[in-house]
Amino acid sequence: MATARFQPRRSVQQVEEGAELAPRFGPDGLMPCVTSDAGTGEVLMLGWMDAAALALTLETGEAHYFSRTRQALWRKGATSGLVQRVVEARIDDDQDALWLRVDVAGSGASCHVGYRSCFYRAVPFGRDADQPLAFTEDRKTFDPDEVYGDAPNPTRL
Amino acid sequence: MATARFQPRRSVQQVEEGAELAPRFGPDGLMPCVTSDAGTGEVLMLGWMDAAALALTLETGEAHYFSRTRQALWRKGATSGLVQRVVEARIDDDQDALWLRVDVAGSGASCHVGYRSCFYRAVPFGRDADQPLAFTEDRKTFDPDEVYGDAPNPTRL
Repeated sequence: MATARFQPRRSVQQVEEGAELAPRFGPDGLMPCVTSDAGTGEVLMLGWMDAAALALTLETGEAHYFSRTRQALWRKGATSGLVQRVVEARIDDDQDALWLRVDVAGSGASCHVGYRSCFYRAVPFGRDADQPLAFTEDRKTFDPDEVYGDAPNPTRL
Repeated sequence: MATARFQPRRSVQQVEEGAELAPRFGPDGLMPCVTSDAGTGEVLMLGWMDAAALALTLETGEAHYFSRTRQALWRKGATSGLVQRVVEARIDDDQDALWLRVDVAGSGASCHVGYRSCFYRAVPFGRDADQPLAFTEDRKTFDPDEVYGDAPNPTRL
């Protein structure tokens, strides 16, 4: 198993300035992962990985996440076909967050609602802070009902 | 207080397709925030916000976070001068993650280790998965000792 590659965390110096992968997962065993489009730089989603998802992502070069709703390992695109091929992976200073730059297969979408990016609404701020959210994409790239059928929606209230 | 603007979460339809800001914070009261450079698209950091930090960010147009190490509200740049001015804020589909596009003041750095981005190391994958991390920045943009003095390092083991 590729998690054998993960090193124990011995010092701040090692974690911040070293060349060993020594990831830190939260109390729930998960690490946040920012995924952006390698071409446009647009942030597509904020996902979560456990050790197995991180290991599989690095091993296969395809993004794997851990679904908090389903509490299960999740190969992105397994249902939708919208596989994310890793172009570059980066770890942050204290090694508790990942950034993936990816190429997305098919329509290029990454959001279960049907949009390209999960971040399809801008939040007004400053003097406009009382304004409603503004949609940044004017149409969906696929029909979620068609793609996911009656699979339960992952959004929790 | 600007948190009055946050709406209760009533339905998946409202949260995903609506124009109301109805954020969801985790069990620890925090939401992850991806912060990228508005000019280059580079992801600079993955921070955390509580309701007060999110409200202050939207109210002032300057990024505020919640420091998990110090357990305190944190105006980015208060010590270092590296203030992040918000250019665009976006919320994700289920409204439990934020994406800020910012302009950074001063040297343009956002990482307490001294680099421009916190994500200054690439993680080899696929056939290179056994290789060490590769630094993507060849020098620091500031001297952390000079800027932070003897303030405790936020990295936890």
